[in-house]
Amino acid sequence: MNSIDKLTELFRKFPGIGPRQAQRFVHFLLSRNAEYTNELVRTLENLKREISQCSDCQKFFPARDSSEALCSICSDDTRDNTLLLVVHSDIDLESIEKSGSYKGKYFVLGGVLPILEKEPERRIRVKALDDLLGRNKDIKEIILAMNANADGENTSDFIKERYKGSPVTFSILGRGLSTGAEIEYADPETLKFALKNRTEK
Amino acid sequence: MNSIDKLTELFRKFPGIGPRQAQRFVHFLLSRNAEYTNELVRTLENLKREISQCSDCQKFFPARDSSEALCSICSDDTRDNTLLLVVHSDIDLESIEKSGSYKGKYFVLGGVLPILEKEPERRIRVKALDDLLGRNKDIKEIILAMNANADGENTSDFIKERYKGSPVTFSILGRGLSTGAEIEYADPETLKFALKNRTEK
Amino acid sequence: MNSIDKLTELFRKFPGIGPRQAQRFVHFLLSRNAEYTNELVRTLENLKREISQCSDCQKFFPARDSSEALCSICSDDTRDNTLLLVVHSDIDLESIEKSGSYKGKYFVLGGVLPILEKEPERRIRVKALDDLLGRNKDIKEIILAMNANADGENTSDFIKERYKGSPVTFSILGRGLSTGAEIEYADPETLKFALKNRTEK
Amino acid sequence: MNSIDKLTELFRKFPGIGPRQAQRFVHFLLSRNAEYTNELVRTLENLKREISQCSDCQKFFPARDSSEALCSICSDDTRDNTLLLVVHSDIDLESIEKSGSYKGKYFVLGGVLPILEKEPERRIRVKALDDLLGRNKDIKEIILAMNANADGENTSDFIKERYKGSPVTFSILGRGLSTGAEIEYADPETLKFALKNRTEK
Repeated sequence: MNSIDKLTELFRKFPGIGPRQAQRFVHFLLSRNAEYTNELVRTLENLKREISQCSDCQKFFPARDSSEALCSICSDDTRDNTLLLVVHSDIDLESIEKSGSYKGKYFVLGGVLPILEKEPERRIRVKALDDLLGRNKDIKEIILAMNANADGENTSDFIKERYKGSPVTFSILGRGLSTGAEIEYADPETLKFALKNRTEK
Repeated sequence: MNSIDKLTELFRKFPGIGPRQAQRFVHFLLSRNAEYTNELVRTLENLKREISQCSDCQKFFPARDSSEALCSICSDDTRDNTLLLVVHSDIDLESIEKSGSYKGKYFVLGGVLPILEKEPERRIRVKALDDLLGRNKDIKEIILAMNANADGENTSDFIKERYKGSPVTFSILGRGLSTGAEIEYADPETLKFALKNRTEK
Repeated sequence: MNSIDKLTELFRKFPGIGPRQAQRFVHFLLSRNAEYTNELVRTLENLKREISQCSDCQKFFPARDSSEALCSICSDDTRDNTLLLVVHSDIDLESIEKSGSYKGKYFVLGGVLPILEKEPERRIRVKALDDLLGRNKDIKEIILAMNANADGENTSDFIKERYKGSPVTFSILGRGLSTGAEIEYADPETLKFALKNRTEK
Repeated sequence: MNSIDKLTELFRKFPGIGPRQAQRFVHFLLSRNAEYTNELVRTLENLKREISQCSDCQKFFPARDSSEALCSICSDDTRDNTLLLVVHSDIDLESIEKSGSYKGKYFVLGGVLPILEKEPERRIRVKALDDLLGRNKDIKEIILAMNANADGENTSDFIKERYKGSPVTFSILGRGLSTGAEIEYADPETLKFALKNRTEK
């Protein structure tokens, strides 16, 4: 296979990229001057060298040197050590962090568990979570911040079941109307939660 | 103005209908046989004659005869008389009713209050709500089931303020993740509510 | 069936209208004052009374009185009587008329012929077209201005076949790139026509 | 800037990629095993080494060795040497080639000329086109296969003007209804061309 076809194939594996856009990426690189591709190559080579995985929350972060094991959140003593918010991905973590509504610690599963998944350990970082919970005895509440769909619910169920009998409590994110939601178009389940979780005005 | 243009103009006032679709409606009627338009005319003439407005919840309903003042929900003794859920429109009422999650009574405002509205009485049925609350002393909680946007919030604020000092409590629908919501794409406000309203797993 | 459900059902037959929008139309009418619905009823009643079908092109038009048989285009002596452009609908006729690129006469089929249609006479106004061609001996060219799809092509084939042996010539609209079309996204058939129908610059 | 941010910035320059998708690309690479990124780096390094630019049509192609100057189309003696089809990009060339409707030669401009562009030579490969036309005296017709928009038209105008007085003829792609186009929704310009370019049925 020639380099154009090979590169098109590699770009097709990028999330959300179809064959036509993969092809456009390759022609974009061919038509840019060599410096752009060189810079892309250099940055890709640097990526895994410079980026470490936090030994606590498992998120990727730019480490100043190889002795740095903890990301800036996990090494921040002012954050609430009794709360652990479990998310699917680094991007979900950043989405919550940007909302400014959470001041505890995080753990990134690196995946979700589809229903009937036979080998959970291959899909999500449960060993690393075991280790973290074994090490960190301050944690009192684990917030399972999963997407509001079947896989998210299944992942929450799995984690709660795994640590059954442990003294920590488990919580899930509140369900109800999201910002901008209209009653007319809300699904029955959302309306059910919105009514059940109604709060005093 | 000829009938084609006049009818096009009337259809343009229908919710969500632009000039092109209004024109297609007229040509659709012209090309159907006369019986279809006759039936439409008959049904429109019957509409206001057969449909009454419930004297309690203010929703439109098909009355068997002119002496029938209450819709089937308001005249249903098995429903919880201590709860009154206030909605914007008949369609919102039906959306909640179809969810099967609510067994109390309703009140339809017939509109929402935009911020800075000078004449609330012209926008929403506050006089009818005054009357209902004056008549029905069983009501303990008013659920303000407004859309999760600025106008909905303003409407809730207005109603709570109007009945300040009354013994009823006011609640608003729970905010949080709607069904299918993903953390990555959730807005900061929704994440804030989802964290604040988290529930034990 | 009550008037709300009956009217919802009638609106669902309008082109492009689903169950939810039909329901919104009904509630829109219920919540407007009576005068709006009365005006709609009056206009619908006037529609078939005031609107005639042109005895030449078959389009609907507002006739000044019942003795007026021809629309303003068919009664316009300055238009080219040797050209007859055949379209599917009144709306297609208006689309071409608005483009300002055509100065001949029109004929509205009132439908298209799906492939394998057994009774063409029930779908399109072929009898009226027979009559017009019998009456009007000035016509030299019939332009079959059908949509560029299978049904349009089938309709053109049917008409050409029906008048085989007649002295008129038949033409179809030019195929090629439409305004704004991009080579990258053009389908193979369009590219084929665009190359075949290329013109000197 | 750390490698994550740097790589996100580089991916944002890819055609059609916004900040969020650029970020997802980076996390996709971080979460894949090292082999995937290594392969991407190797392929990018190979790309410019293995891919040559055809000295006739200027398209990029995988050359077997560095002495190979012509792509498979330009070196194909069975193709019609009297026709030269000028396109914007390699992707447009492939789109036409896949349609199977063209058997002449190509030239890739590598860009289009926006109206009022001051330095055409920096935007499109006019020097290479000068050279090709100087070398190849068989060319009789230049087909300007540009997108059907203002920039495409401007580019066609520029090329025709540049070779004014040359014995070659210039043609542009046929305009009209594209496959699937409907009369009702066609713009006036497309209808004008469709009428003007109508063909005998």
